[in-house]
Amino acid sequence: MPVQMELRRIIINEVDDHQVIILKEVEGDRQFPIVIGIFEATSIDRRVKGMQAPRPLTHDLITAVVEQMGGEIQDIVISDLKEHTYFARLRVRKEGELIEVDCRPSDAIALAVTARVPIYVSEEVLGEALDED
Amino acid sequence: MPVQMELRRIIINEVDDHQVIILKEVEGDRQFPIVIGIFEATSIDRRVKGMQAPRPLTHDLITAVVEQMGGEIQDIVISDLKEHTYFARLRVRKEGELIEVDCRPSDAIALAVTARVPIYVSEEVLGEALDED
Repeated sequence: MPVQMELRRIIINEVDDHQVIILKEVEGDRQFPIVIGIFEATSIDRRVKGMQAPRPLTHDLITAVVEQMGGEIQDIVISDLKEHTYFARLRVRKEGELIEVDCRPSDAIALAVTARVPIYVSEEVLGEALDED
Repeated sequence: MPVQMELRRIIINEVDDHQVIILKEVEGDRQFPIVIGIFEATSIDRRVKGMQAPRPLTHDLITAVVEQMGGEIQDIVISDLKEHTYFARLRVRKEGELIEVDCRPSDAIALAVTARVPIYVSEEVLGEALDED
């Protein structure tokens, strides 16, 4: 069963390019960090703060592409952890069909924040993430 | 009639965040610059150089979303110039239908380079761009 998570913190580090986001279980206390790049971190940060951009940014474009092609973003899932690297999936609902597209967790989380859809992590990945932390 | 352009140069400026890409007419000599951000410039630069990323980057994700939803990127068009700002459209072909999605030229050009599709500019915008330059 995937576990629903929320974005708890974004830690912007100006010294090197290892930004950190902390995901926390919605109905519990388990949490773990994911290291992402500065572009993705600032993109997520802008969205969380509700800052409007004058023109659609890259993650807005993805949301627009999905909608104009007749689908909607259902949720995102952090589905795998291999050699300290997380893998995610964007899940799009289109005419009853579920389309899963592989992506990086940073893009997935930026999209979840943009499209206001839930963030899930598989129970297995959550267990491994806690062991790593 | 839109005019087909090619990416002639990417000028990465390490002093401030005004990177420049130069688009040149494919069947002629007209060219003009577009100022973009460093993330977009390095994303385009990586693609032009054929550098592979271990995981799909944001513009690869857009291409994958379009394909998995049953469409294909046909081309991109730089369609407008208002108050020194360019506007573009991503054009997706899906079951014979043409879907146009508004985007920034930097995303459009990164997508054109990723999906290997033509870059067009409207004749009107090209005229105005030459006047500005």
